[in-house]
Amino acid sequence: MVPASLKRELRDIVGKERCLDAPEDLMVYSHDVFAEKKPDLVVLPVTTEEVSRVLKLANREKVPVTPRGSATGLTGMCVPDRSGIVMAMSKKNRILEINPEDRLAVVEPGVITQDLQLAAEAAGVFYPPDPASQSICQIGGNVATNAGGPRCVKYGVTRDYLLGLEAVLPSGEVIKTGGRPIKNVTGYDVTRLLCGSEGTLAVITKIIVKLIAKPEARRTLLVAFRSIDDASTTVSRIMAAGIVPRALELMDQHYIRTCERVYNLGLPTDAAAMLIIEVDGFAETVDRQARIAKEFCETQGAFDIKLAQTEEEADKLWLARKIGSVALYRLSKTMVAEDATVPISKIPAMVRRLNEIEKKYNITIYLLAHAGDGNMHPLITYDPGNKEEAARVENAIKEIFEASIALGGTLTGEHGIGLAKKPFMHLEISPAEMELWKNIKKVFDPNGIMNPGKFV
Amino acid sequence: MVPASLKRELRDIVGKERCLDAPEDLMVYSHDVFAEKKPDLVVLPVTTEEVSRVLKLANREKVPVTPRGSATGLTGMCVPDRSGIVMAMSKKNRILEINPEDRLAVVEPGVITQDLQLAAEAAGVFYPPDPASQSICQIGGNVATNAGGPRCVKYGVTRDYLLGLEAVLPSGEVIKTGGRPIKNVTGYDVTRLLCGSEGTLAVITKIIVKLIAKPEARRTLLVAFRSIDDASTTVSRIMAAGIVPRALELMDQHYIRTCERVYNLGLPTDAAAMLIIEVDGFAETVDRQARIAKEFCETQGAFDIKLAQTEEEADKLWLARKIGSVALYRLSKTMVAEDATVPISKIPAMVRRLNEIEKKYNITIYLLAHAGDGNMHPLITYDPGNKEEAARVENAIKEIFEASIALGGTLTGEHGIGLAKKPFMHLEISPAEMELWKNIKKVFDPNGIMNPGKFV
Repeated sequence: MVPASLKRELRDIVGKERCLDAPEDLMVYSHDVFAEKKPDLVVLPVTTEEVSRVLKLANREKVPVTPRGSATGLTGMCVPDRSGIVMAMSKKNRILEINPEDRLAVVEPGVITQDLQLAAEAAGVFYPPDPASQSICQIGGNVATNAGGPRCVKYGVTRDYLLGLEAVLPSGEVIKTGGRPIKNVTGYDVTRLLCGSEGTLAVITKIIVKLIAKPEARRTLLVAFRSIDDASTTVSRIMAAGIVPRALELMDQHYIRTCERVYNLGLPTDAAAMLIIEVDGFAETVDRQARIAKEFCETQGAFDIKLAQTEEEADKLWLARKIGSVALYRLSKTMVAEDATVPISKIPAMVRRLNEIEKKYNITIYLLAHAGDGNMHPLITYDPGNKEEAARVENAIKEIFEASIALGGTLTGEHGIGLAKKPFMHLEISPAEMELWKNIKKVFDPNGIMNPGKFV
Repeated sequence: MVPASLKRELRDIVGKERCLDAPEDLMVYSHDVFAEKKPDLVVLPVTTEEVSRVLKLANREKVPVTPRGSATGLTGMCVPDRSGIVMAMSKKNRILEINPEDRLAVVEPGVITQDLQLAAEAAGVFYPPDPASQSICQIGGNVATNAGGPRCVKYGVTRDYLLGLEAVLPSGEVIKTGGRPIKNVTGYDVTRLLCGSEGTLAVITKIIVKLIAKPEARRTLLVAFRSIDDASTTVSRIMAAGIVPRALELMDQHYIRTCERVYNLGLPTDAAAMLIIEVDGFAETVDRQARIAKEFCETQGAFDIKLAQTEEEADKLWLARKIGSVALYRLSKTMVAEDATVPISKIPAMVRRLNEIEKKYNITIYLLAHAGDGNMHPLITYDPGNKEEAARVENAIKEIFEASIALGGTLTGEHGIGLAKKPFMHLEISPAEMELWKNIKKVFDPNGIMNPGKFV
C-alpha cells in the first residue's frame, strides 16, 4: 500500500534508522492493548519539519497515516486499521521548558507523561492528569485522547491543562493554536478540537500545558464495605458534601479477591467493595477532609478503615488499585476494560445494572471505578477462542453501553472511541452530529488519510 | 434586507409581541458597549423549536442572523454588522435544573449569570465564572464569548465549566454536544468549538454547566504600593509561590485617582498602584494564605494594607475595582477597554510598555488588570469627535496589541474579537489558521448567515 518510490522519498526525509519496514518492526508498531493491524511502514520523526514533509508526501499519494504514542490505549485508537504509515512520535521527546513563574511547560509529544510530572514537581509545580499508564504513555497520546486518571475527579482531564498546540495538517501546513497566556479567547478553540480527536485530524508536534500549584499534603484512606451499594452511596454523599478528594476509587469483591489471590496484599476478601479516598491541599486541611470522609464511610457501615500515616503507607494502600488489572490480564486469555461513565448520582443504579448484566449473561464483571466522577471501569475477562462465551460478552458490553446512555451517561469517560466503541456510536450520537463531525474532519483532512477507519 | 414575506412568516412562528421592527425597538437591539448597527428585525424565541424554524427560514433566504444576550460585550460581537435579524435570547431564560448531587446545572441561554450563581449557592454549590457584568449578562452570551472574570485566575473561564450544549445550526438542525457526565471523551469537542465562537456558528439553546464545591471562607486584602513595578512584581511572586488567590486585581494611579475624585471612597491617592488580593478555601487555610500574600506585599514595599474583617468590609474593598470604570464612562465622551493578555512573568514588562505608549501618544491609560492571569485591561478615554486625538488613540491601541504579541501574549484574554479586534487578527493568527477557521465556519454555516462580518 506504500509504493516503493514513496518509501524511498520518506527514507530520504527521516533517514534509514527512523524509517522501518522489517517484519519484526512492523509487528512492534501494529497493536495497542485492544487491537492489532500491521502498518506497511513506520516513520519516527524528530522535527516538526520532518512531520510536515512526511505528511505532505503521504497526502499526495493518499496513503493512510496513523499517529502513535506508546500505544497504551484500550480501544485500538492508534492501530493502523487501513495499514499505511504509522507515525510514531517517541523520538520527538524533548521537554523544552518548565516555567514555574508562567505556570506552564512546553513539551514535544513523545515526552513520557511521568517525566513531565516529575520535572514539574522538581520545579515546585504540578501537572495533575495521571492516566494509569503514566509511567510509559506519551503526553502527545494523552492530548490526542484527552486522557483522564484518578486525580481528574479533583483536577480535571488533559483538555483542561492545554494552553496551546503546534500541529501539522495532512497538507503539511504547520498551525499553532492557543499560546502561552493562561487566558486567551482569540478565535475558534482548535486546541480542544484536536484534543480527543484520536489522530483523525492532524499530528500534534508541540504542546503547551498549564501547571498549577503543588498541593502541600495528602491523606489516603482504604475503606472496606459489606455492600457495594453502601460504597457507591458513600461516594455520592462525599461529593455532595463538597469534599472533593483528589481520588475516589472503587473496587468490587471480584476484583479484590483476584488481586489478593495473586499478590497477597492482606486485603479483606470478605469486603463486598472497597474505596480508596485520597484528599489533598494545604497541610492544615487534609486531616479535617480525611475525618469527614471517614465519618461518611462509618455512617454507611464501613467495617475496615485504614488511614496511611506515611507516604510509603499511602503508596501501599494504592497497590491493589494499581496492579489488580495486571493480575486480571495474567489470569485470563483476554480482557476488555470499558469506561462507560454516568452522572455521579447514578453510580448506585449503574452498579445494580452491572450486577444484573453479569447474572443475565453468566459472566464475571470485575468493577473498578473512578467513582468520584462517575467513570466506571467494568472489566470482563474471557476466552476469545470460545465463540459462545465471546458472544455473551459482546452482548453484555452492548447492554452496559445502553445502560450508561439510559442513565444519562456516555460511552466513554476517558478511553476514547477507537475501534472498540465505533459500533456503538449511534447510541449516543445523532446522524446530524456525526455528519457535522465528518465535515469537520474533511476541513482538516480532505483526502481522509489521517487514521482512517475510526469513529469518523 | 428582510423581505416582507419572510417577516410575515417569522411573525407567524414567534408571534407579534416577540417579532419587532418598530424603529425604537430596532434601536434598543442595535448596539453593545463598543459598536452600533441597526437590525431589520428582532425576534425573541422562547423554545428551541422556534429558534430552529426561524433559522431555517433565514437560511433559505440567506438573511443574516446575529444572536444576542444582554449586549454587555466590549467589542461589537453581537452587533448585526450586516443588519438582518437579531435573535435576542432574553426570553428563553429558565433555570431548568440545579443538581448538587451531580454537580451540574441545566439552563437556557437567557438566564442572567448572577441568577445562576445565586441559585447554585442556595443549593450549596458554586458556579465560579464572574464577568464584571454578571448581574445583567446572560449565560448564553458567556458561553458564546467564553467569558472570564476576576475569579478565573483560580477557577478558570466559562469554557472550563461546560459539560454539554444544545445548539441549532443555520439549517435548523438541533444538535446536542457533550452531556451530563463530568468525564466524556466521545468524539470531537464541539462544545468547546461553539464556546467562544461569538455567534458565528450556531445558536446555543441549552447549556449544561459543571458546579463545584462552594469555598467555605474568603479573605480580602486591599494593598497600596509606591510603584506599579512593585505591585506587578508582587503579583508574579505570589503566583510563583503557589498561593493562587481567587482574585488578584491591579489598579493604577490614574484609575485610583479618578475613582476617588468621583466616589470619595478614601483610597490612598498617593499610591502608584493598588492590588486586591482575595484568597478562599477551607476556613483554616484562608488566614495563612492571606498572611503569606501580605508578607510578599510588605517585602515589595507596600505602604498601606487593609484586611477585611467582615463580608461587608470585603465588599467595600472591592468597590473601587467594581465601579471605577463606570466613573471613567461618566467622565469621558467614550472609552475603549482592551484586554491584551500576557504570560504572568511578563506583567512588569507589559506595564512598562504601556507607560511608554502612554507617553509616546500623549494619552492617558487607566490600567486595570486581572493581574493573576496576565489579563491586562488598559482603559483609554477620548473624544471620538476630535479626529487628531482619535488617531493617536488608534495608533496606541495597535501598539498595545503589538506589545502583547511580542511578549508572547494574545489580543484578547476575555473580551473577544468582535469588530474591535478584527483589524488586528493578522498579528496573532497565520493565514493557514484563518483559512482553517473559515472552512470550519463553512461546515456549520455554508450560507454565511451567522453573525456575518465578524472575525471569520
